[in-house]
Amino acid sequence: MSDTLKFYHAVNSPNSRRVRIFLAEKGLKPTLIPVDLGTGEQHSEAYRAINPRRVVPALVLEDGTTIGEVPAIMRYLDEAFPEMPLLGATPKDKGLVVMWERFAELEGFAPAMEGVRNKVERLKGRAVAGPHDYEQIPGLVDRSMLRLTNFLTDLNERLEQVPFLAGERFSAADITALVTIDFAKALEISIPQGHRALARWKDAISKRPSMSA
Amino acid sequence: MSDTLKFYHAVNSPNSRRVRIFLAEKGLKPTLIPVDLGTGEQHSEAYRAINPRRVVPALVLEDGTTIGEVPAIMRYLDEAFPEMPLLGATPKDKGLVVMWERFAELEGFAPAMEGVRNKVERLKGRAVAGPHDYEQIPGLVDRSMLRLTNFLTDLNERLEQVPFLAGERFSAADITALVTIDFAKALEISIPQGHRALARWKDAISKRPSMSA
Repeated sequence: MSDTLKFYHAVNSPNSRRVRIFLAEKGLKPTLIPVDLGTGEQHSEAYRAINPRRVVPALVLEDGTTIGEVPAIMRYLDEAFPEMPLLGATPKDKGLVVMWERFAELEGFAPAMEGVRNKVERLKGRAVAGPHDYEQIPGLVDRSMLRLTNFLTDLNERLEQVPFLAGERFSAADITALVTIDFAKALEISIPQGHRALARWKDAISKRPSMSA
Repeated sequence: MSDTLKFYHAVNSPNSRRVRIFLAEKGLKPTLIPVDLGTGEQHSEAYRAINPRRVVPALVLEDGTTIGEVPAIMRYLDEAFPEMPLLGATPKDKGLVVMWERFAELEGFAPAMEGVRNKVERLKGRAVAGPHDYEQIPGLVDRSMLRLTNFLTDLNERLEQVPFLAGERFSAADITALVTIDFAKALEISIPQGHRALARWKDAISKRPSMSA
């Protein structure tokens, strides 16, 4: 049934990868439609008719409704295809997965994205994704990298206590954290020596077949 | 049953207000426990034992579990107390509410917070909420204000098409958008003349009894 869904994505987009891993973990196979960020296809009239926010990824349902934004797409998929829940099974777990997925996103993924968007030459004038143009603020790059480093330390401390970020079970929070760590290479940041719990977790998570998605 | 919950909040915290309105809309009455941000009570050992992220709000369940972060608290509450859903009733609506609540938060609320935290004298060295200290970046203030202004324009366009932010029904997305607009006064930003759909929506939403929460 998931093949009536269309998933607009870009191969090198870390936000797209978050959803591709989520789909692979759940065994869902929507029709994948690549959007070429290199040529600015996300700003084309055709794509803006699909997602006026001009970003990938976006999921289009059978009735033509577009759901944009990674946590929104994940929420839809976990509700429409409840087998193998990745956002928690009980009210308490659902709250905790949102909390920890958000921790990974706001403390890790977002600073990594902010660092890249305010640094890279080809993103001049495009420091924030979306329909509006914003100039880069070079001073933000160092702060973003410091935040990302603090995130890795906090993440390591958390993983000294529990096997997965949200607790006892693999969840969307682990997906966002893993994608963040891979993405952080763009800022030449990797797991510091001595963050053993984090390194162990990363090795285990990276072996899941979904992670090549 | 909701009186076995403890809700840690601050009266003047806009993030706390998002949840207080949510609670009022659902008729839930947890035990409210104020945290004095003025004296830095969020950094006290007592509060850090409750929420190591050192921010309000936080919801503590009967079993002692802390759920922090506004969307996580909302998710827990809508699952544990499903009457009067504020995050949507069908998979599609749930996805759309997450998408539009996130739009209000990331495009409106977060820039407002970023503007204030990078501007205000008493937040020097505390430009990002949480356990780590970061210096202010004054250049961020103007960009945040520009983003907030663009948000109001985008929000007005959306509300020219639908009665509520996420579509046909009042939802958490309206709560976050309304709190953002009230909070934007701290940066001396208000709804521009001519944003009629937005002004009309704000008047209607502001009359709901929950909004005094």
